[in-house]
Amino acid sequence: QNNLSAVSCFLRGVKVEPDVRRVVHSIKVGVALVLVSLLCLVDPLYKQAGDNAMWAIMTVIVIFEFYAGATLSKGLNRGMGTILGGGLGCIAAVLAQEIGGVGNAIAIGTAVFIFGAAATYARSVPRIKKKYDYGAMIFILTFNLVVVSGLRAGVVMRIARERLSMIVMGFAICISTSLLILPNWASDELHISMASKFEHLACSIEGLLDKYFESVTDKENKADGSFKICKSVLHSKAKDESLANFAKWEPWHGKFGLSYPWDKYLQIGELLRELAATIVSLEVCIQSSRQPTADLRQLIKEPCESVASSLTWTLRELGESLMKMTRCQSETLLLPNLKSTRLELRHCMSPSRFEHACDPGEDLAVATFV
Amino acid sequence: QNNLSAVSCFLRGVKVEPDVRRVVHSIKVGVALVLVSLLCLVDPLYKQAGDNAMWAIMTVIVIFEFYAGATLSKGLNRGMGTILGGGLGCIAAVLAQEIGGVGNAIAIGTAVFIFGAAATYARSVPRIKKKYDYGAMIFILTFNLVVVSGLRAGVVMRIARERLSMIVMGFAICISTSLLILPNWASDELHISMASKFEHLACSIEGLLDKYFESVTDKENKADGSFKICKSVLHSKAKDESLANFAKWEPWHGKFGLSYPWDKYLQIGELLRELAATIVSLEVCIQSSRQPTADLRQLIKEPCESVASSLTWTLRELGESLMKMTRCQSETLLLPNLKSTRLELRHCMSPSRFEHACDPGEDLAVATFV
Repeated sequence: QNNLSAVSCFLRGVKVEPDVRRVVHSIKVGVALVLVSLLCLVDPLYKQAGDNAMWAIMTVIVIFEFYAGATLSKGLNRGMGTILGGGLGCIAAVLAQEIGGVGNAIAIGTAVFIFGAAATYARSVPRIKKKYDYGAMIFILTFNLVVVSGLRAGVVMRIARERLSMIVMGFAICISTSLLILPNWASDELHISMASKFEHLACSIEGLLDKYFESVTDKENKADGSFKICKSVLHSKAKDESLANFAKWEPWHGKFGLSYPWDKYLQIGELLRELAATIVSLEVCIQSSRQPTADLRQLIKEPCESVASSLTWTLRELGESLMKMTRCQSETLLLPNLKSTRLELRHCMSPSRFEHACDPGEDLAVATFV
Repeated sequence: QNNLSAVSCFLRGVKVEPDVRRVVHSIKVGVALVLVSLLCLVDPLYKQAGDNAMWAIMTVIVIFEFYAGATLSKGLNRGMGTILGGGLGCIAAVLAQEIGGVGNAIAIGTAVFIFGAAATYARSVPRIKKKYDYGAMIFILTFNLVVVSGLRAGVVMRIARERLSMIVMGFAICISTSLLILPNWASDELHISMASKFEHLACSIEGLLDKYFESVTDKENKADGSFKICKSVLHSKAKDESLANFAKWEPWHGKFGLSYPWDKYLQIGELLRELAATIVSLEVCIQSSRQPTADLRQLIKEPCESVASSLTWTLRELGESLMKMTRCQSETLLLPNLKSTRLELRHCMSPSRFEHACDPGEDLAVATFV
């Protein structure tokens, strides 16, 4: 039975090789680059675009990200930053020209300093940094370029308009390539990774038990993978948050509506990380050199295994229901099971040693979902 | 005594307000921007630089990061990417011109596709992404701009040289502002944050005990902060890694030599996170509704407190010795203390309930340092 569960863990744990997706992504970027290069390569287009075609190329390279949501968010940020920076830059340049002479240069220098410092400070505020970091950077960039070049050319408005239209063109190419050809949705990724976390934790619990009830000698090699998986769940906070951030930018698609509750995913992730913390601390416990004798362990083997199997069953059930987006039969099926497990555990609690004492904690963390 | 320790936790936990550093950073960026704008604003300089001054401005805005190491790494990446991309772009443009006619455009399109896709794939490989992500992006950017504009101008080499010199100038301005005026060293940040993690964990252990041995009613409000601190330690992996990555780029300064063992910090961080996981899981345990009666808790109060105080003492000792970079009196002082603690704990183990059963785990995690 243990072997069977190990195999099932292995099969379920196998990811769709992310390499294929990376290759597809690379090809998409290549296609977008060729498309945008046509602006320079085809004569009639080049006559229209001129040297400003550079801005379209730059936009494509800088904006195109792996996830569709990331591309969208960067593109919109860039658009907003360019418009704001360009507008303010125009005003500042015109005002500075009214002053004239040396005062002109001083006024421009002052404006550059004030706006640059203010926008940089805004970038470092965590809330703004999370969503609009790139937009603020582009704001500074555009503002500076416009205000400084405006001093020379005096045709700021035309330049700004032309560049903006080029950026819009680059953005359009990016978005169409990113969203129409095999899109990589951050929302799909978040959904699947969240569901598979349940599975991963179930596997690590099984791995933990296997490791504990086997002989001490080959403990090191076996089930070391499950520990790693569990740790990756523990450290998934940053990734989850960025995925949820991108997912919020993504338009309606597949089974996800426009106002899909992505924040709920983050909450579930937080609870799963608490469970993962418990499992990691148990792992650390059984790595200790002072362990009860094998006899004693055999004594508590059966109740521990039954607790673990009901826990993993619950976890898998929850993960599957999340994956299929169906309401799981929580109150009717899972709760009684967990309750009986708890009673059983209390029964065998008194003689057991401390290594498995924390299981009620897992129990509890799971019970909070239901 | 408890009140005293709470006050000391509070005092030690107070950070130097990061706001001041952010303001200083913003002002530094402003100064760098004004300096680089002088290229356009001062006539003799502008005659030399021409419109390429734009590249210097762009470099400053894009490269200037909060930490000195990040600025250095981005700047060097940008330099390498520009040189590589420009060089390859020149070669490709010259080769394509040899073909001539429509073949020229097709050859350039193919080159754009192949190099763009290949570099994008390289960017998505985790090892390269970690260190050279920005360099690869600049490589694609420069390659494309050079190869596409080379088609028109035929003076690729000159453009590439001029832009490169502008980028070098922007880089020089960045580095001098970033490193000479009140530098924000990522290495200092990593060093201090690692040392204060010991302190944070010690505080959370104290908070945990306070919470457990108080009445159940006001448990929620009290010491909730210590839980948050502990969780922030648990989720510090990504931040530590990026800091260590920047710290490796930073030149010799202060007490850190050139080949300072930053990877050791990451290992210590990993162990501290394991300890934090244990504390978090204990927190989850005592949030449960099923707790032993107050009498029973009073029974185990004294041994638990003595264990906790020896643990926190050890943690603070270790943190301080890390902070001061002195070798702590490990074998002579800490180990006997921990060992006696362990014995004591074993004494009172049998009647105790499971909530504090995991303390040997902490003990162990600490013992691995010594």
